[in-house]
Amino acid sequence: MIIAMRSDATEEQIEFVCESIRNYGYKPHVIRGEERVVIGAIGHGDKKDHMQSLRSVEGVENVVPILQPYKVVGRELKQEKTVVRVGDLEIGGSRFVVMAGPCSVETREQLMETAEAVKAAGAQVLRGGAYKPRTSPYDFQGLEVEGLKLLAEARERTGLKIITEVVTTEDTELVAEYSDILQVGARNMQNFALLKRLGRVNKPVLLKRGMSSTIKELLLSAEYIATHGNDQVMLCERGIRTFETATRNTLDLAAVPLLNELSHLPVVVDPSHATGKRSLVRPAAKAAIAIGADGLIIEVHPRPHEAWSDGPQSVTPQMFAEIMDDVRRYAAMESRHVN
Amino acid sequence: MIIAMRSDATEEQIEFVCESIRNYGYKPHVIRGEERVVIGAIGHGDKKDHMQSLRSVEGVENVVPILQPYKVVGRELKQEKTVVRVGDLEIGGSRFVVMAGPCSVETREQLMETAEAVKAAGAQVLRGGAYKPRTSPYDFQGLEVEGLKLLAEARERTGLKIITEVVTTEDTELVAEYSDILQVGARNMQNFALLKRLGRVNKPVLLKRGMSSTIKELLLSAEYIATHGNDQVMLCERGIRTFETATRNTLDLAAVPLLNELSHLPVVVDPSHATGKRSLVRPAAKAAIAIGADGLIIEVHPRPHEAWSDGPQSVTPQMFAEIMDDVRRYAAMESRHVN
Amino acid sequence: MIIAMRSDATEEQIEFVCESIRNYGYKPHVIRGEERVVIGAIGHGDKKDHMQSLRSVEGVENVVPILQPYKVVGRELKQEKTVVRVGDLEIGGSRFVVMAGPCSVETREQLMETAEAVKAAGAQVLRGGAYKPRTSPYDFQGLEVEGLKLLAEARERTGLKIITEVVTTEDTELVAEYSDILQVGARNMQNFALLKRLGRVNKPVLLKRGMSSTIKELLLSAEYIATHGNDQVMLCERGIRTFETATRNTLDLAAVPLLNELSHLPVVVDPSHATGKRSLVRPAAKAAIAIGADGLIIEVHPRPHEAWSDGPQSVTPQMFAEIMDDVRRYAAMESRHVN
Amino acid sequence: MIIAMRSDATEEQIEFVCESIRNYGYKPHVIRGEERVVIGAIGHGDKKDHMQSLRSVEGVENVVPILQPYKVVGRELKQEKTVVRVGDLEIGGSRFVVMAGPCSVETREQLMETAEAVKAAGAQVLRGGAYKPRTSPYDFQGLEVEGLKLLAEARERTGLKIITEVVTTEDTELVAEYSDILQVGARNMQNFALLKRLGRVNKPVLLKRGMSSTIKELLLSAEYIATHGNDQVMLCERGIRTFETATRNTLDLAAVPLLNELSHLPVVVDPSHATGKRSLVRPAAKAAIAIGADGLIIEVHPRPHEAWSDGPQSVTPQMFAEIMDDVRRYAAMESRHVN
Repeated sequence: MIIAMRSDATEEQIEFVCESIRNYGYKPHVIRGEERVVIGAIGHGDKKDHMQSLRSVEGVENVVPILQPYKVVGRELKQEKTVVRVGDLEIGGSRFVVMAGPCSVETREQLMETAEAVKAAGAQVLRGGAYKPRTSPYDFQGLEVEGLKLLAEARERTGLKIITEVVTTEDTELVAEYSDILQVGARNMQNFALLKRLGRVNKPVLLKRGMSSTIKELLLSAEYIATHGNDQVMLCERGIRTFETATRNTLDLAAVPLLNELSHLPVVVDPSHATGKRSLVRPAAKAAIAIGADGLIIEVHPRPHEAWSDGPQSVTPQMFAEIMDDVRRYAAMESRHVN
Repeated sequence: MIIAMRSDATEEQIEFVCESIRNYGYKPHVIRGEERVVIGAIGHGDKKDHMQSLRSVEGVENVVPILQPYKVVGRELKQEKTVVRVGDLEIGGSRFVVMAGPCSVETREQLMETAEAVKAAGAQVLRGGAYKPRTSPYDFQGLEVEGLKLLAEARERTGLKIITEVVTTEDTELVAEYSDILQVGARNMQNFALLKRLGRVNKPVLLKRGMSSTIKELLLSAEYIATHGNDQVMLCERGIRTFETATRNTLDLAAVPLLNELSHLPVVVDPSHATGKRSLVRPAAKAAIAIGADGLIIEVHPRPHEAWSDGPQSVTPQMFAEIMDDVRRYAAMESRHVN
Repeated sequence: MIIAMRSDATEEQIEFVCESIRNYGYKPHVIRGEERVVIGAIGHGDKKDHMQSLRSVEGVENVVPILQPYKVVGRELKQEKTVVRVGDLEIGGSRFVVMAGPCSVETREQLMETAEAVKAAGAQVLRGGAYKPRTSPYDFQGLEVEGLKLLAEARERTGLKIITEVVTTEDTELVAEYSDILQVGARNMQNFALLKRLGRVNKPVLLKRGMSSTIKELLLSAEYIATHGNDQVMLCERGIRTFETATRNTLDLAAVPLLNELSHLPVVVDPSHATGKRSLVRPAAKAAIAIGADGLIIEVHPRPHEAWSDGPQSVTPQMFAEIMDDVRRYAAMESRHVN
Repeated sequence: MIIAMRSDATEEQIEFVCESIRNYGYKPHVIRGEERVVIGAIGHGDKKDHMQSLRSVEGVENVVPILQPYKVVGRELKQEKTVVRVGDLEIGGSRFVVMAGPCSVETREQLMETAEAVKAAGAQVLRGGAYKPRTSPYDFQGLEVEGLKLLAEARERTGLKIITEVVTTEDTELVAEYSDILQVGARNMQNFALLKRLGRVNKPVLLKRGMSSTIKELLLSAEYIATHGNDQVMLCERGIRTFETATRNTLDLAAVPLLNELSHLPVVVDPSHATGKRSLVRPAAKAAIAIGADGLIIEVHPRPHEAWSDGPQSVTPQMFAEIMDDVRRYAAMESRHVN
């Protein structure tokens, strides 16, 4: 890290900073400029706590980090792309993976009908929420374990892998028993107890970016899972919250190539939550492939206007089949195959 | 709710919407304008799920809610202000309440020294984190149960009430055993499992606004706690995330009188996290009182540059005593007393 | 518009609202629900001033618009896509158009070298700033008229069309004399005097979205130009300002298909300003085509590290040639040709 | 500035950076750490263009500034607070100044009635828009020169000073002829041609913060006016654009003490535009005083529901008189007098 002293800093203050740096185990380098002194502290890490402490010292103007705070999920220590394995399905490799299904598991009929439709269209993974984090206590909260069983039944019937959300540490084991991939929702991206728990699970995790989380925070949340023992993590861009209200969220597609530069983890895009508008899902899906995503997760419902949640952003099975045609064409442009 | 049809909507589509409204238990009122048809659905609530479903119907341009989605915590059903009782301490009444203490409980010495200092200056509640939700897995994560015990010891010694954060459903009972008030941190404002669990606890809750949460979402999260059985809830404005980086967050002080209009729950302001800068805490604290807050929660550390977290925004005991002088003067302006 | 009355609104207040609506030339429709009264005012427009006035009336809870406030640039009145003509070059038709060149015109050598390189790679329009709106008064402010002359010279030499920014009403005529397309920068999107002046110019305008402007505001700014006489307007998505600092702005690519739904004007994407990072320009450019843009505007500099502005986001001529290879491949996927 | 090299940077790349730094007139200091090299460039300024250029150099990881980019308006070079003089009225001194009046000048009756009411209540300056920058071309655009004449007439009648907005360079002289203070609206904060023109005017300027402008950008815009010859500048916080839609903007009150730390210019708060809601103006006004503002600018209209613009945020003359009572009480708390 670099510590810039105020122009009126005293020699005592400068020496105090140097001493603190030595106590942290770094070596201070003092640069004396015409207007002020700048001190470089070069060592094995830029610990936020150390930086914050130095910001509190009298005479210090600013402290800036040099190193990225994430290690295990970053590209510096591991150059080659991580391939997440879900049974025989590989995500992050040459295959472009599509996960699709309803926002919520509602009924057996709804789920099986959707599962067969997305399977027929070429999806490899079935999504469906059994535990639903909802803004209002008056909204539908999910079928819970009943939903998990229906998902398992759909897997039996179609051969699709299953992804579903886990919302508490207590349910983690149960969800892991039924699901092939565990999803962490945007609202739980910084539920650190949950992240630690997922680090001890032997199932891949799809980590959704929080709606106001920076790229750096997303990677640090992935780092939580990885450092607690589970390196099978996928990142998911699903739109961020901005001043714009014409779309549900703002799809930050440039985050995809940036994540690919900074991290070796696969990146999945969710055009449904990102836009909140059915008509935007198809163009956004094409763009996600073109910009370098490894997969898509799309909400599909046989009768969107009857959906118990997220109807406006759910596409019909027929629209999904058309999207898959585009997915195949665009994935081929990026030398990737679908099904 | 109001459903605006597209200008090219057919009679079948209009009838379909009316039929759906009847199915939801509302009564449709069709208004035929020169350019388009608008349908009013007036009933006992504007359920988000119903509105979303209608947005998916062919021929519908837009659906807008009329009613507020929160009931129990809103002013419509309960006009008089809620007074939260923490033993003999009342929050939301004529007393202006100050909670103060370190970001993290670090050592017995640090905590006792701080507790005695804030007690002497006039605080009524001691804050201190035992479980710390930290962005990076490499940051200090809290002393956990050891921290809780130190907090209880400080209460014994000073007579201060205790507030500390609970981060998981599993720890809720344990934290409730030691603490007088349970704090929900900004990152957990939409951890609905935790909110439901806190609804079944017999201790007051301080609910911090999420860093990108709207006022409406904050009130709906309070509604979760209240509808699950606990109406002793305080709201806390602690700054929101915006494009501005000169302060840690953007303190949304106008949210205080707005919350007072919309809800009967007490409102507490956290100028420490909101600004992230020690020198801004005092002016922000004065403004919080002037704008109608019921209390403050302030980070105090005997030696901020040695703090294990949040050093730059922690004030020293001496600065805190000066802030309390201002608090007394400004609280008196609002006809409230401190100690 | 729809006016929702408070649940305690009196009959006098309801009648006052109805009377006001009649005065505005609308017809009021009163809907009496169980909890409250809602009044529909259906007429030829939802004037913001009328809505704001009604929001001020006693007893009114909320006023919501039904109609879009823009007319001339919207899809409702004009279904077919606008094709902007720049001499023999058509934008918004079957051709995919690329504009490229340096951020600032710096020297004859720099401009001619860049112009020839982007021409050779397949660009149709040369960009280059002669008047530079810069955040700091200490930054380079542009060569002004000298820059315009160099741009005209580059057109002479290469046959490329010219696009350059106009920053004041006073310079409009001068810039229009030299340039084929007039660019309105993000900071001037709501410089209404400038927009009105551009309505009286006989040259196409590229209107960049303001960094915190909504889609609706962008379209209303285009409406200013169109209603003042100039319907040759292109919209440009160039990234919006959000909390994320890892990229210079957040590229809102989903705005492209949304603008295509709401408006008939061509849409151009600027991946350079949107990302601020050279390595992200190429993937963002591909995604922009896939999501439905009509063109791109890209910053190119022969030696980015010597650029007087925007070096980090400028690509070299060689990188630009590689981007153009991708542009051709992806434009073909969308049934569009380049050169 | 500080240049952090990548861990794989070559000696040639390091030398290239040092050479560039020398060319800019700085002296490079190379710090060799265990993992990477960091180079300090200490000199008379951190020019953004230089920093951006270095970010483009191969082998460079990051470049961070040390010095603030504004000089004339900053506290480093001028410690004592600037007092802006409007005739015999001083802003920034011991007096707390209130500017009040309608959003738009509409009619003689409306303006005179308002002027006399705000004068009677204790305002020192009359506000009123003659040139209105409106989002939609269909909204009222202002009375223009007729409005200026009415403002001058109101000054004649009441002795109040006049503040009104100038929106173009061309009108600057005309507006300066009639008005005592020239207001730059939020949408024009980065209209640099206008700022330069105002640098050559012999009248004080009130510079409103852009709705998505950082504190640093606000100060750099003030620096434009000051370096072009006019140091009589006041800064105005009027709310920023965030994700929150419950208020029109988010009032960033903590910006007030921060601006007071960074700059010597007086700071005025506009609670009307910041909140957009009449009932929030009074509490926000009190908080603005408590947090250290030097003045307020408040929208007042005799009949808000008839206002041609900004009705919902305009207070009545009676409400304004009540606000002024609070202003006097709170200003006294800060040792300032009103009238």
